[in-house]
Amino acid sequence: MVGLGAMGLRMARVLLAAGHEVVGHDVSAEAVDELVKAGGRPADSAALACRDAEALVLMVVKAPQAEAVLFGNGGARETLRPGRPVLACLTMSPGEAEALGERALEWGWLYLDAPVSGGVAGAEAGTLTFMLGCPEAAYESAKPLLEALGRKIVRLGERPGMGSLMKTVHQLAAGANLAVAAETLALAASLGLDPRQVQDILMNSAGYSWMVEHRGPAMLEPPERPGSTMEIFVKDLGNVLQAASGARFPLFMGSAAHQVFLGAVRAGLGDQDDSQVVRFYEALGGTPVARPKDGSKGTSGG
Amino acid sequence: MVGLGAMGLRMARVLLAAGHEVVGHDVSAEAVDELVKAGGRPADSAALACRDAEALVLMVVKAPQAEAVLFGNGGARETLRPGRPVLACLTMSPGEAEALGERALEWGWLYLDAPVSGGVAGAEAGTLTFMLGCPEAAYESAKPLLEALGRKIVRLGERPGMGSLMKTVHQLAAGANLAVAAETLALAASLGLDPRQVQDILMNSAGYSWMVEHRGPAMLEPPERPGSTMEIFVKDLGNVLQAASGARFPLFMGSAAHQVFLGAVRAGLGDQDDSQVVRFYEALGGTPVARPKDGSKGTSGG
Repeated sequence: MVGLGAMGLRMARVLLAAGHEVVGHDVSAEAVDELVKAGGRPADSAALACRDAEALVLMVVKAPQAEAVLFGNGGARETLRPGRPVLACLTMSPGEAEALGERALEWGWLYLDAPVSGGVAGAEAGTLTFMLGCPEAAYESAKPLLEALGRKIVRLGERPGMGSLMKTVHQLAAGANLAVAAETLALAASLGLDPRQVQDILMNSAGYSWMVEHRGPAMLEPPERPGSTMEIFVKDLGNVLQAASGARFPLFMGSAAHQVFLGAVRAGLGDQDDSQVVRFYEALGGTPVARPKDGSKGTSGG
Repeated sequence: MVGLGAMGLRMARVLLAAGHEVVGHDVSAEAVDELVKAGGRPADSAALACRDAEALVLMVVKAPQAEAVLFGNGGARETLRPGRPVLACLTMSPGEAEALGERALEWGWLYLDAPVSGGVAGAEAGTLTFMLGCPEAAYESAKPLLEALGRKIVRLGERPGMGSLMKTVHQLAAGANLAVAAETLALAASLGLDPRQVQDILMNSAGYSWMVEHRGPAMLEPPERPGSTMEIFVKDLGNVLQAASGARFPLFMGSAAHQVFLGAVRAGLGDQDDSQVVRFYEALGGTPVARPKDGSKGTSGG
């Protein structure tokens, strides 16, 4: 396992709990210490982590890091045997995934383009959704790992890049729904409704989305530390707009959402939790969505 | 109970199942027959339905109909006693709800501005979400009915109009999420992904919304009869844009969604099921989202 951040460390713990042996590497010594505390073994390099490994799980942040882990000095190419599955779970562009997959094939590895959805909670519970682009043989060889880490596993095509294409498209739904949730809460506040009650209604209505449940509470009460930051949706929505533009496909909702996230970054919220996009609307509208708890009004029952 | 359409009839059945006696009226004799089949009693007018009634539940389509049921010839004013609760479950503008509530107050009734979310499925299961604008006394008097018909009951304020304001705002989240789901599926298809697999992913990911689950299947396979039609979202998004505009609050996502639904109506889809907004994107993109089942590709597991 290489890449022991918020996602990777939790995935490593799930694999350990499922009875797998995990040897982990990360550029942060602290992250490796956490793995050791959880019962894993440390490795000083990707090459050492891959020595005698039956599979490599990659959960670094960006494609260039994945490339270095696989093909750089002290990388997997020095030790990982041909025929072993390489499960690339990071988010990257379809083109990057395809290029990495082609190079991995040259080394004889079974490469799986395998981005995920489900966030930190899904990683921790082993309930991630996997979006796979890989040949059948690679899928079969990685099945035990996939089934330990995920609940929903969908193979979208043979070709590396198809998983990342799905993830790219997925971010349109995720980002746009997040902007919709923020816009709804902020409008409600500025029309005199209690945002906590509105959140409660949205949790139980046709306006429900995963984002309402998983980002709504942080809109009402800002988190102490950011999880996924605003800049990530600026990038991800930019990527899906570019892919759509290449196919000459107009994204009315996606382009509006991109502008909203750009507005949030422009308002100085770039490194804050993506839920704080609601602060952008507050700045426009003047009515706070987050208020002191004793400022709530009305009765809620049922 | 007055108004025995798709929603009202199901709500009447739930009340009957909960042991209430239901006397129903509708302009359609067929609808009244259905109520009788379910164990209810027919009434030839609203006045006759309200004779000796302990409460009136209103589920007609529009505010002018509700006004006629309450205050027209052969209306509730001829028979419904003061102090009885009037549960107005239809969707109308906050101004209309406020005006009706004021007139009902003059007649001495306990008026509840009580629009719902949850659709036909929620009506059938007795799991509707109620958004109430009413005084405490009206809420208390209607509680047994509310608890039979709904699962989530939120009182947003004392004033009739507050429930309808919430419903107006709610339709922003519902309509925009619907447009997002359609845009995502249509983009995916035009980029070469299998829309059925994309739907499957969205059902299990951060891109999930109520609309993905409840309208997605009809995007993949058009329904034989429309449920809620496209024109309703043109109207509802128009209403929320107007309310926001009145408060000088910009709706980036809501305005984009409104344009999408206008485009769908312009494309001749106005009287079709609102899920068919995806056909508008198909017409733009050229790649069908709905395909024959044997045209699907790839493997899906997990």
